[in-house]
Amino acid sequence: MPQEAAPTDDRPAARHMPADGRALGGDKVLVTGSGVDMRLLEPLRRRGLEPWRPDRHLSERELARELRGVVAYLHGGEERATETALRSAEGTLRVVAFLGVGYENFVDVAAANDLGIVVTNTPGAATTSVATFAIGQIVNANWRITRHLGSLVPDWADGEELPYELGARKIGIVGLGSIGTRIAHILKHAFGANLAYFSRTRKQHLEASLDMPYKPLHELAEFSDILVVMVPGTGKTISMIDSSVISRLGQGSVLVNIARPAIVDAEALYNGMKEDRIAVAVFDGFYGGDSDFGLRIREDFPDRLLVTGHIASHTRQAMDRMVRQAVKSIENVLDHGVDEHAVGTFTDPEPYAEPYRKVAGPHRLTSDTPQKAGCGTH
Amino acid sequence: MPQEAAPTDDRPAARHMPADGRALGGDKVLVTGSGVDMRLLEPLRRRGLEPWRPDRHLSERELARELRGVVAYLHGGEERATETALRSAEGTLRVVAFLGVGYENFVDVAAANDLGIVVTNTPGAATTSVATFAIGQIVNANWRITRHLGSLVPDWADGEELPYELGARKIGIVGLGSIGTRIAHILKHAFGANLAYFSRTRKQHLEASLDMPYKPLHELAEFSDILVVMVPGTGKTISMIDSSVISRLGQGSVLVNIARPAIVDAEALYNGMKEDRIAVAVFDGFYGGDSDFGLRIREDFPDRLLVTGHIASHTRQAMDRMVRQAVKSIENVLDHGVDEHAVGTFTDPEPYAEPYRKVAGPHRLTSDTPQKAGCGTH
Repeated sequence: MPQEAAPTDDRPAARHMPADGRALGGDKVLVTGSGVDMRLLEPLRRRGLEPWRPDRHLSERELARELRGVVAYLHGGEERATETALRSAEGTLRVVAFLGVGYENFVDVAAANDLGIVVTNTPGAATTSVATFAIGQIVNANWRITRHLGSLVPDWADGEELPYELGARKIGIVGLGSIGTRIAHILKHAFGANLAYFSRTRKQHLEASLDMPYKPLHELAEFSDILVVMVPGTGKTISMIDSSVISRLGQGSVLVNIARPAIVDAEALYNGMKEDRIAVAVFDGFYGGDSDFGLRIREDFPDRLLVTGHIASHTRQAMDRMVRQAVKSIENVLDHGVDEHAVGTFTDPEPYAEPYRKVAGPHRLTSDTPQKAGCGTH
Repeated sequence: MPQEAAPTDDRPAARHMPADGRALGGDKVLVTGSGVDMRLLEPLRRRGLEPWRPDRHLSERELARELRGVVAYLHGGEERATETALRSAEGTLRVVAFLGVGYENFVDVAAANDLGIVVTNTPGAATTSVATFAIGQIVNANWRITRHLGSLVPDWADGEELPYELGARKIGIVGLGSIGTRIAHILKHAFGANLAYFSRTRKQHLEASLDMPYKPLHELAEFSDILVVMVPGTGKTISMIDSSVISRLGQGSVLVNIARPAIVDAEALYNGMKEDRIAVAVFDGFYGGDSDFGLRIREDFPDRLLVTGHIASHTRQAMDRMVRQAVKSIENVLDHGVDEHAVGTFTDPEPYAEPYRKVAGPHRLTSDTPQKAGCGTH
């Protein structure tokens, strides 16, 4: 294949057809998300496809209009691909390639599958970014950094216990997917932490190499000075960290949740902070405005919260990796009708085979949620 | 030696005498710093010494009074051991054991040595704490964390470049003492950063094992997306990072100085931030109120500064390690008149043999500087 760049503005003469011989319903690829580097879509242009990115957030109605005649949809924005929106592309749309892994609130996968549309995601692409961000936040929480930023002298209360080195901390990891595993490696090898973990699947090679015993979730909570939650947001993990878990944490613990907020029950978190059982809570993405306890936590414990707006995966490299992976998935589905990163009933016979590869859960959105400028990673 | 606790309230009958036969001028040990765990002084009590800690910050006059008749002085507070204060202990005081390494602004070592008093410090005790804190702040600066804390959605400006993963960053380390070396190891092994360094002494084994070339300081600045400064504060390192260095940084660089603030020239830093050459500056301990440029930096670039009040070494473990080391130094000086951690002319024939073992520079203090509650590490 020639390596020179294919024309991008004019419609190219040659077009790849799907391997199964079906004619493409269109040559348009809808792309959303301001963080997508459009140059990475060159492989699609070389196939005669025409990536097109609207310059604003799309309402459901706008999305439906944009999807008409589209053959592939690279979802990197904050819009919600509802059944109604997807139905407008019926007959042409063959694949929704979601950038990130927390697709549940952004793409109606069941509706897509019913329409014969494959939905893919990009597991693993943000592992390095999210693990690095999590380590930074663990250090921040351990040092109570929010109390110290901007101070010229130490801001400890009289008689307050000093922070402990991470090597003197017992750290429990909930979920040993690629991100949880990376975090565990860094905590052990760089900082000498005393680790244990809970995961749906035992990982005996890691138990040995990281000197990290498996513990049932309640025992892990009893063990942990710092509890790091890194599981995907699924029906089975929502409110997994509930009052029965939090009540087993010792006084002054740190809870780090870089996964979807709803994995931690908001009321249980509120009570845990009120009882000083949880001294500091870290969230990347927080409960929405409809969560009373979420609001009360922000009001009552502002300096014991380290909340960010879902930025752990927001790096140039993670984003580019996701886009490259999504482009490959689009090509696979167009050529073969299948892709290894497909999700849902369509091509996901064992949805929990790798349960903990999710990066982070998005805030719950409706199609009309007003957005601040986002970069479109999930 | 019997292991049961020696009496602490009554004067014990038996007393160890110094090996050289000189009678001790007193049996009192002055201890300062609220973070000192007094239980760790048990070895001194077993020798018949009586540790005594005033419950407040000492002015020069108060310190002079407290020092009268004292044989050893464990300096863990924020007071300034001036010549005047030390002179009041002439004839009895044999050792000032300073907790930490940044003693220059706290102990008049030349005056002490003239009076025959050995001054010791505690190199290495805070390596783990300071390196960990530095890593956290590097991640924070890389993600522009201050802009995101408290936000529920990403807070990037329109068109703003996303953060890069540390593995896609060129990081320059200035100073390869124990802390700089630890930081380099973590950045390479945990995060895959592309490293280079400048140090007074070439460290060829590290150049090979960390794939980290040596560069002269100006070249290192040209190389670095993130410049990490980790050198001791001495006459030779003050303003070492001046305009000639900062002008060689590329646009949008990060400067991380966990060492003494004055190692970075404040005017050069101000100009570097004004030109957006330095996007984010990290300091643990900042210029005092007498620094015009320090004030202007805080006023003009508040959200591009990550300033903390000298807390990198403030962990329970580092503090306890320092106290244990100081107790040993006191015993060594009382028994043998010398200690391996002595500093100054007294027993420091080559003061720069290990130039980069310093933890972090304290804020410049006068004996009358008002203090917030401090824990007493330096």
